[in-house]
Amino acid sequence: MTEQRTWGGRFEGDMDALTRDYTAGMDQSLYEDDIAGSIAHARMLGKQQIIPPEDADAIIAGLGAVLEDFRARRVVWRPELEDIHTHVEVLLREKIGEAAGRLHTARSRNDQVALLNRMVVRRAIDDCMDAAGALIETICTLAERYAADAMPGYTHVQRAQPITLGHHLLAYGEMLLRDRDRFRDCRRRVNIMPLGSGALAGAPYPLDRESVAAELGFEAVSRNSLDATADRDFVAEFLAACAITQMHVSRLAEEVVLWASAEFGFVKLPDGFATGSSIMPQKKNADVAELARGRTGRVYGELMNILVTLKGLPMAYNRDLQEDKAAVLGVLPVVVPTLRIFAAMLPELEFDFGRMRQASGEGFSLATDVADYLVKKGLPFRDAHGVVGRLVRECEERHCELNQLPFHVYREASPLFERDILGITVESALAARDVVGGTAPERVRKAAAELRALV
Amino acid sequence: MTEQRTWGGRFEGDMDALTRDYTAGMDQSLYEDDIAGSIAHARMLGKQQIIPPEDADAIIAGLGAVLEDFRARRVVWRPELEDIHTHVEVLLREKIGEAAGRLHTARSRNDQVALLNRMVVRRAIDDCMDAAGALIETICTLAERYAADAMPGYTHVQRAQPITLGHHLLAYGEMLLRDRDRFRDCRRRVNIMPLGSGALAGAPYPLDRESVAAELGFEAVSRNSLDATADRDFVAEFLAACAITQMHVSRLAEEVVLWASAEFGFVKLPDGFATGSSIMPQKKNADVAELARGRTGRVYGELMNILVTLKGLPMAYNRDLQEDKAAVLGVLPVVVPTLRIFAAMLPELEFDFGRMRQASGEGFSLATDVADYLVKKGLPFRDAHGVVGRLVRECEERHCELNQLPFHVYREASPLFERDILGITVESALAARDVVGGTAPERVRKAAAELRALV
Amino acid sequence: MTEQRTWGGRFEGDMDALTRDYTAGMDQSLYEDDIAGSIAHARMLGKQQIIPPEDADAIIAGLGAVLEDFRARRVVWRPELEDIHTHVEVLLREKIGEAAGRLHTARSRNDQVALLNRMVVRRAIDDCMDAAGALIETICTLAERYAADAMPGYTHVQRAQPITLGHHLLAYGEMLLRDRDRFRDCRRRVNIMPLGSGALAGAPYPLDRESVAAELGFEAVSRNSLDATADRDFVAEFLAACAITQMHVSRLAEEVVLWASAEFGFVKLPDGFATGSSIMPQKKNADVAELARGRTGRVYGELMNILVTLKGLPMAYNRDLQEDKAAVLGVLPVVVPTLRIFAAMLPELEFDFGRMRQASGEGFSLATDVADYLVKKGLPFRDAHGVVGRLVRECEERHCELNQLPFHVYREASPLFERDILGITVESALAARDVVGGTAPERVRKAAAELRALV
Amino acid sequence: MTEQRTWGGRFEGDMDALTRDYTAGMDQSLYEDDIAGSIAHARMLGKQQIIPPEDADAIIAGLGAVLEDFRARRVVWRPELEDIHTHVEVLLREKIGEAAGRLHTARSRNDQVALLNRMVVRRAIDDCMDAAGALIETICTLAERYAADAMPGYTHVQRAQPITLGHHLLAYGEMLLRDRDRFRDCRRRVNIMPLGSGALAGAPYPLDRESVAAELGFEAVSRNSLDATADRDFVAEFLAACAITQMHVSRLAEEVVLWASAEFGFVKLPDGFATGSSIMPQKKNADVAELARGRTGRVYGELMNILVTLKGLPMAYNRDLQEDKAAVLGVLPVVVPTLRIFAAMLPELEFDFGRMRQASGEGFSLATDVADYLVKKGLPFRDAHGVVGRLVRECEERHCELNQLPFHVYREASPLFERDILGITVESALAARDVVGGTAPERVRKAAAELRALV
Repeated sequence: MTEQRTWGGRFEGDMDALTRDYTAGMDQSLYEDDIAGSIAHARMLGKQQIIPPEDADAIIAGLGAVLEDFRARRVVWRPELEDIHTHVEVLLREKIGEAAGRLHTARSRNDQVALLNRMVVRRAIDDCMDAAGALIETICTLAERYAADAMPGYTHVQRAQPITLGHHLLAYGEMLLRDRDRFRDCRRRVNIMPLGSGALAGAPYPLDRESVAAELGFEAVSRNSLDATADRDFVAEFLAACAITQMHVSRLAEEVVLWASAEFGFVKLPDGFATGSSIMPQKKNADVAELARGRTGRVYGELMNILVTLKGLPMAYNRDLQEDKAAVLGVLPVVVPTLRIFAAMLPELEFDFGRMRQASGEGFSLATDVADYLVKKGLPFRDAHGVVGRLVRECEERHCELNQLPFHVYREASPLFERDILGITVESALAARDVVGGTAPERVRKAAAELRALV
Repeated sequence: MTEQRTWGGRFEGDMDALTRDYTAGMDQSLYEDDIAGSIAHARMLGKQQIIPPEDADAIIAGLGAVLEDFRARRVVWRPELEDIHTHVEVLLREKIGEAAGRLHTARSRNDQVALLNRMVVRRAIDDCMDAAGALIETICTLAERYAADAMPGYTHVQRAQPITLGHHLLAYGEMLLRDRDRFRDCRRRVNIMPLGSGALAGAPYPLDRESVAAELGFEAVSRNSLDATADRDFVAEFLAACAITQMHVSRLAEEVVLWASAEFGFVKLPDGFATGSSIMPQKKNADVAELARGRTGRVYGELMNILVTLKGLPMAYNRDLQEDKAAVLGVLPVVVPTLRIFAAMLPELEFDFGRMRQASGEGFSLATDVADYLVKKGLPFRDAHGVVGRLVRECEERHCELNQLPFHVYREASPLFERDILGITVESALAARDVVGGTAPERVRKAAAELRALV
Repeated sequence: MTEQRTWGGRFEGDMDALTRDYTAGMDQSLYEDDIAGSIAHARMLGKQQIIPPEDADAIIAGLGAVLEDFRARRVVWRPELEDIHTHVEVLLREKIGEAAGRLHTARSRNDQVALLNRMVVRRAIDDCMDAAGALIETICTLAERYAADAMPGYTHVQRAQPITLGHHLLAYGEMLLRDRDRFRDCRRRVNIMPLGSGALAGAPYPLDRESVAAELGFEAVSRNSLDATADRDFVAEFLAACAITQMHVSRLAEEVVLWASAEFGFVKLPDGFATGSSIMPQKKNADVAELARGRTGRVYGELMNILVTLKGLPMAYNRDLQEDKAAVLGVLPVVVPTLRIFAAMLPELEFDFGRMRQASGEGFSLATDVADYLVKKGLPFRDAHGVVGRLVRECEERHCELNQLPFHVYREASPLFERDILGITVESALAARDVVGGTAPERVRKAAAELRALV
Repeated sequence: MTEQRTWGGRFEGDMDALTRDYTAGMDQSLYEDDIAGSIAHARMLGKQQIIPPEDADAIIAGLGAVLEDFRARRVVWRPELEDIHTHVEVLLREKIGEAAGRLHTARSRNDQVALLNRMVVRRAIDDCMDAAGALIETICTLAERYAADAMPGYTHVQRAQPITLGHHLLAYGEMLLRDRDRFRDCRRRVNIMPLGSGALAGAPYPLDRESVAAELGFEAVSRNSLDATADRDFVAEFLAACAITQMHVSRLAEEVVLWASAEFGFVKLPDGFATGSSIMPQKKNADVAELARGRTGRVYGELMNILVTLKGLPMAYNRDLQEDKAAVLGVLPVVVPTLRIFAAMLPELEFDFGRMRQASGEGFSLATDVADYLVKKGLPFRDAHGVVGRLVRECEERHCELNQLPFHVYREASPLFERDILGITVESALAARDVVGGTAPERVRKAAAELRALV
């Protein structure tokens, strides 16, 4: 079988493209962000008369020219210069000469790295929030579309009660909204400007840190120089938020895999998101879902990575901290593409509503509704359970479902039953759950609208 | 050597007491919370006429009596009843008979468990926030006390520049403030009332969920019944916040261990927090710090536990979710006692300020200040570095520190030096870092005040 | 629904009983092992004339009496004595007076703890190996029983080719055999005797360490005293072996959950291992399987715990190491009971062979056999694929399976087809995979016998 | 400060070179291994008459030519062909045409991937074993060299008793030997040949799997086709072994960082493995050690990654498994280079033996030797402790060490003391620990020789 390759080619191709763009974006963001940080620093140094204003102007102009070179792809990477900071530094010197040296006044590599890392994570958060937001919106649209389409609701992978597909999908919408909130909360703690912390003790110059923060879009400046250069809790928090998000998607992925199986038969996978096979045209593997599920391990692993790295490190900067960037770069090609590919895939899933509707009414999934019928007539809950238990056993003997029992059987079981008991159907069961958070179609529509409004 | 035992007895004893109280508190909170949840549910059922109001009253009174029995320790645990929910249920039936059965109207074990878990985590968060807040306040007090006491500032465990002990401690204050914020953000997502979600699909009764939420102190009701019964992201988020907090303390713990070594000799451990030895009275092991550091693994492990448990679980409730409670109960005897014991220990540390002050000026730790002197006179940063490098080599030959060089050596190195170069001292270096976040004593006092105001 | 409780009571009850016995066994093993270690140490001290032989005899007799007290449950735990070592020490002194003090000659708490930990882990390994061995044997028995019972073989949770249930189960037998091997390899590294290492540097007495090792069943003595008192890699290795074992069971657990679903319908869960419900008598939740899957997180978490604890700890003993016991005790109530309960559950599963057999032939699962037919006739693999692809499409139009196509359709597709193509069935497909490791029933029987011989 | 860059450039450069070579080696091993596997498969197919022998010959010759192209770097990577398997397949077809299609007879992508993964991990294990072995040998050489050089032995980072540097280093030698053993045990389980397992059920051809195994250096063939294609426990076991190894190095790394601090002052870092600074020539950061310590998180993370990926996956192959390769490739640039760079760095460390020797005798580190003196004279251990405790207090009042007390003070403390008590020195304390595993110089030399013989 060569099916993996055939499909893999397509998907991996797509994924590769996404990933390539994304990674390129990252690299780009590295120089964009590093240069932006340096420009803001230089402007402030000049304004504060810490360096001659004309040198500040030269530096700013030079950095602009270096940025243009990067954008125009005129910069050749020199491995011996090792990182983006040194490249920018050397390129600037080549542009403007000696004055370049003044850029490093009142700045250490330690606070410069802290600044760039915060800008990188901030950008990553924004991407995650965008992608989560887009997926929530897709889910809202689908929830409205499928607000009344019945399917079995499961507990323990056992059919329990009917729900609607819209309701089911909205569960993920809610999870993702919390994920998005979590990223937003994290962003607040990321968005603190560390420049001015020096190597560890603060810079001995009359800096205007607030103006640098404002120029770079930071909400505040850091309040302790050791903390600012030596902690990376913001990376751990970001990765924890990523881990929870990916966990949520892994659950939906598991369901897509199950739904696409012959046994469930709830969904036909769109060609673009599944493996075909020349020999078994009916066979479609939910590879996108499987990869999303499988890559959860990577995100958890990177979270563990940064937590382990930080454990027990004394103040202030230690070289171990360099590993934080690898952890962030390790999850970026997973979380955002996963959210995006699900937003693309979900609307393309072809559901077999007939099969789902039928399955939703099987397996005595209306039993609790019959019990609730009795409870509403005044029977205590436990007694109602007993009555319905006997009815189900009767069904099992007759090989029928509850709503196929003749009325007299109900009446013999309890005098509280009246004719309307025969009106209990999947649809009535759905409609009855007309409570905030319930699966009644009208509630689902409202919940979708409410959720959409929150994005 | 029997030192572990001797001390272990004391500390473990204390820890055991703390832990016992805390765990008892947890167990207590379990029945308090479960009964509170049931009372709120019963009251609402009565008000909404879902059950006869007189039955609701009987249930509420009965639950009150059960609660009294628990509080008075009159309840004997029956293993066959297995959990707190069943105990309360059976005890209520023994008090009020049949009417007890109506309590379960419109409620499933699945949403009942979700409710209790959220109350347990909410309480745990409050404890964490309190303990973190108290530790921050302790740190603020110490930071003010030690705002001007010099010590070496390290990078790579190498002396780099002088800082003050107050400044150093405040770094942890800042970390803990973010930790506390993180708990608060998490609390918002925890504090959602799930009751009314039924087993998975919502309850088919005209519930007033908002009134239940209000009575139990929840900010809102859940918007999707599957999500409410099947997700535990709030546990993962709570444990991630715990992991980051414990990581922060592990770093301080590492420093206490180092400071207490003969080599650093910065701190004498208080008897109550260290191991003594009958044979080596001078030997004191920083066991509290070591245990705090060592227990970081437990917190990380529990975070991994819940993330692994949740990965790939299909909707809705699965029995795997039962493991969430063990994860929460696994960290509670670690995080809160750790924060509390550090708040008790830090003020008892006897610092050797003479030694710290002396070490802070050794190792050419004023070299960057000399360079900055030249920069302020107009020399580009790189050139200033070169000059100071030559001066340090001169010192090495003379076996002296920079401020012990005669003035003419400075003058020969650069004509920019004037007499005031001899005035560079640890104190002037500290004072020079008079920038937001810097180690200048006055800044440290302000930062401590600012931080205290934020708690 | 109160189903969780009803069943939970039963299962949790059973599990609790298992766990209680097991835990009691652990506690017991703690004093048994600690006392055995002390007796061996005392005997050697006497023989080597390090302490007076009569004192050695008194100590040995006294320890024997203490052991009897423990076994007869006459020992009251005194929290202020905190751990098993101190209890034994104090009880011995109460029995024999001053001579008890000589037991600690040439022994430190550090090497005593290392000894006990190794005995605890060794015992845990033996339990794991026994339990894994018993489960493998159960699987072998079942594999023989079900060697020819067809079921669908899945990849990507898509039906791919027929296999037999016996073959499927043997996959887990092979995994568990490796797990058992891994425990055995780990045992070799655990089974090293550390006593004589002193606190860290070795004991300054003419010890006969080999005789102590021999008496306690150790294969060798440790070769470096720092390593012996300060490393716990054997705990990490043991927990890694546990993690892989539990991972394997989690995969079988996932399959049991799926097989028990209405959609698969392959298995009926035995009452003793599933949740019943008074209201839905047909509903059975695979709680045992779900808990086994859910507790995987705990085992992973404890592995991470010990790895994190050990990271970056300098030589030699640090108090952090105390956490190793909690990690071991955290997994013991998971791994062994999980293996045992699966050994009990698997033979009780009632498979629906009719349904499995039918499903195994559906979905064109014989397509690759048709292709292989052509390949054996000389057609290159790729061409054969093309031919079968066209036949499957023909089937889809006719809504039939491949072996329901009339012969002329085959002949039109390729002149290589002869009448025997119609003889391709699930059974012929199974029989054809008559290769080492293949699913042919005869191979399965041989593989089961071979595996059984290896246990 | 620009020190990070300056040094970073050098080290990162070196590391990059190592990593580049290593990674290139990996990529190379991928095609070497994939082609070797295909050649063995084709040869067997021909010999077994499963494909025409002349086609087999053509395939083998063609694959040889493709291999030459790879080695000569004549192959241009085509992203649309996505992986190494497809490249080889397409390149072969371009060389020999249609016959290439017969290579895939009796082989599926699933068993082909399993084969390659096992070859990759086997190669990685061999590299790890080589690198660990070389580091052990280096340690043995250093242990012999420093067998008698005293240093303080620490517990709890407190000076406890004198040891020798050779003894200290050998502790790591022992750890690494176990690490190497662990890799060897793992290799046995990796070195199983999966080809012939087909997609999941075994291949329907008369294969000679043993001959393929023999040609490729495998010890045995897999016994179950589902297990062979669907499990990756060997990856998890390999990564667990890597995690433990890296953990061990992280502990040595932590010690190097501490020893290199001004406070310990035990070691001067060699220029090639440390950061210099133009401005602070005396400052050297132990960046290699810090990176080794910091990268521990990555290895732990990848272990968690694969364990999470495998958890709960049903049989047989799922796309999630593709992630295993990323996990292996994630640790390869960490573990082997770490071992190699430590083998290069350790012999270059310049120890300050004078300082270490002096520190080893301070802090009453001989107190236990004085107590043991009394024990050997017949005093019970506890009483001896009491006597020495009083002597130490006397020392503290006199501000001297134990061996500076006048003899009459000893005699007043206990009549058992004789003149030879004054002969207790660091050297006598070292020599006294003349037990297997002890720090006596002669023992250390023997232990080094014994360890070297085991590599």
